[in-house]
Amino acid sequence: MGASLGRVETQRVVLFTAERPLTLDSGATLGPVEVAFETYGTLDEDRANAVFVCHALTGDAHAAGHHDDPSRKGWWDTIIGPGRPLDTDRLFVVCANLLGGCQGTTGPSSIDPATGRPYGLRFPLMTVRDLVRVHRALTAHLGIERPLAAIGGSLGGMQVLQWALDAPDELGAALIICASSRLSAQNIAFSAVARESIMGDPDFRGGDYYGNGSAPDRGLSVARMLAHITYLSEESMRRKFGRRIQDADVPRFGFDVDFQVESYLQYQGAAFLKRFDANSYLYLSRVMDYFDAFADPAVTTRALERTATRFLVMSFDSDWRFDTSHSREIVRTLAAHGAQVTFREIESPYGHDSFLLQVPEYHRTVAGFLDRAFRERSR
Amino acid sequence: MGASLGRVETQRVVLFTAERPLTLDSGATLGPVEVAFETYGTLDEDRANAVFVCHALTGDAHAAGHHDDPSRKGWWDTIIGPGRPLDTDRLFVVCANLLGGCQGTTGPSSIDPATGRPYGLRFPLMTVRDLVRVHRALTAHLGIERPLAAIGGSLGGMQVLQWALDAPDELGAALIICASSRLSAQNIAFSAVARESIMGDPDFRGGDYYGNGSAPDRGLSVARMLAHITYLSEESMRRKFGRRIQDADVPRFGFDVDFQVESYLQYQGAAFLKRFDANSYLYLSRVMDYFDAFADPAVTTRALERTATRFLVMSFDSDWRFDTSHSREIVRTLAAHGAQVTFREIESPYGHDSFLLQVPEYHRTVAGFLDRAFRERSR
Repeated sequence: MGASLGRVETQRVVLFTAERPLTLDSGATLGPVEVAFETYGTLDEDRANAVFVCHALTGDAHAAGHHDDPSRKGWWDTIIGPGRPLDTDRLFVVCANLLGGCQGTTGPSSIDPATGRPYGLRFPLMTVRDLVRVHRALTAHLGIERPLAAIGGSLGGMQVLQWALDAPDELGAALIICASSRLSAQNIAFSAVARESIMGDPDFRGGDYYGNGSAPDRGLSVARMLAHITYLSEESMRRKFGRRIQDADVPRFGFDVDFQVESYLQYQGAAFLKRFDANSYLYLSRVMDYFDAFADPAVTTRALERTATRFLVMSFDSDWRFDTSHSREIVRTLAAHGAQVTFREIESPYGHDSFLLQVPEYHRTVAGFLDRAFRERSR
Repeated sequence: MGASLGRVETQRVVLFTAERPLTLDSGATLGPVEVAFETYGTLDEDRANAVFVCHALTGDAHAAGHHDDPSRKGWWDTIIGPGRPLDTDRLFVVCANLLGGCQGTTGPSSIDPATGRPYGLRFPLMTVRDLVRVHRALTAHLGIERPLAAIGGSLGGMQVLQWALDAPDELGAALIICASSRLSAQNIAFSAVARESIMGDPDFRGGDYYGNGSAPDRGLSVARMLAHITYLSEESMRRKFGRRIQDADVPRFGFDVDFQVESYLQYQGAAFLKRFDANSYLYLSRVMDYFDAFADPAVTTRALERTATRFLVMSFDSDWRFDTSHSREIVRTLAAHGAQVTFREIESPYGHDSFLLQVPEYHRTVAGFLDRAFRERSR
């Protein structure tokens, strides 16, 4: 449905400097903060057609179109483009690599001006609110006062929720997809094992592995393999791999990769190393663990009793990373405070990964919700 | 309910020798094979009151009573003892460490007589049928021709199922608890990540880490942490830990252990290192991956059309490691071939671990089934 954008470019902008640094929730300050972002479509004269895309744990600013290689599309290309749910024929879509990332925005692999070396674990701890601060600094820089909408899945949805709470006058619509207002014990447990794997790798060296010729690749790869199990449903794993043997009809019986599902996970683990930094993984997974959007009832009430934002909260019935109960908890709290909330649980066999895929009912729902927001905003 | 046994001893016996070795499914031979086992209760004159306990992935022969320390009971002490479901006032209970284990029975950490050094990865690959061969050699050694029953949970239940298929005349009853006739893609995926973590640890050294002063502790610990997530239900993790902070009221915000669930997993990972060998973990997890009890329809038919064994298949509704669909598949196949099968899904919030816990309905069901087997056998 719709067409893909053509060639796009990643842009960079310094939003905070050593002199005018970003102050984080922890009290720490950070500067310079550079942000990598992409935009698709054209900002209209009223600056009222902007949709901000918040990416998930390991995403980046390159959400749609392609860079050099036309066959390698951005991570959310199926939903962004002319005639697509985030319709670039009329919307101006912005996606930025988040704070603490490793794809152009300042993070633990960036140079610490105090030492001239990469931050490593000297990078400050962040909160989802801090990630949103940087997004809002970018929209301000782009001259967007009130985005038509913010949208994101997983950690992306958590940023959208936090944004709506921090700036109740700002977002026209908030689209929160397979996210959570706070992680469960099991969610934190998976994070903890992933971090243990990374930090226990002898090549981690307390986070100072840059320029040493080796990084905690084994630990990061195991973390990624584990994460992939939680991104797929049991059903989609069965459909995709079952108990099939890789490149053979009968098992080889040994410790090498034998089942297709092993081969898939190994590939995902290895491919991840080329594009992701272990310290960023640690910081961003910790941001998720500590997130607790409605922790302070007074803050929640203050934000929601005066919000004009329309919320769309969506989950996928086969998602077991953030199952529907996470979305229902968000909906309950929003609705209890009188916010305008639409909730949809979408049937899809693909688990948490569904938000990245072309699930027709999901795309139709997003398109319809944005269409209404666009028409009402444009009046 | 019932009482705990007092002090018990682990016994050892050499069941196969270099001259009369064990021949495995793979064609490899193994000798000597020593087996560590314990017995509780008294074998009656007819040798008709024996119940064989098959343990799970990381269990051992010490199922009930205590060794030196009266406060440290065997792993299944709640179900074995005078007046308990496996009632040692009238039953003779046998539990043996399985082949490939590391608690007294020959496994990869044993000395290879060909080299005078531990086998490591030169230990042969095994199947569940091989594990059962050794159990049956032990019952023969003990003068038990037809055990009243075999019982086990998880990998233990897989051994019971295989035993019933391999020797359809032998078992009076087969109690198969939260097991599987073949792992799903997701089950194998978790195994694969655990093995990757162990084998990727630089201290693994291709399996030859014995006597080197260091073992793949980090990798094994991560594998164990991961396994523990799959042993508990999301519900029991929420009840047990929620988002509570360890030893404090407010989060410390950092990468050290902060949430209680992290502390629990770290403890489980570290404690496991004291009692388990990484190579045994690799071998036994691979045994589970390759298990496919009903792979050959002709073999299944031949075994089941003449079996006199009564089957009890049980699952726990909150178990997501081997959920009820695994048990239902076993029941369907057994019933389709005319075997006598009772199926029970037990309500329990504790997930896969339920089979180790004192869940009343579960214990009553086991007690009732064994009671009937005992009365009919004794006539």
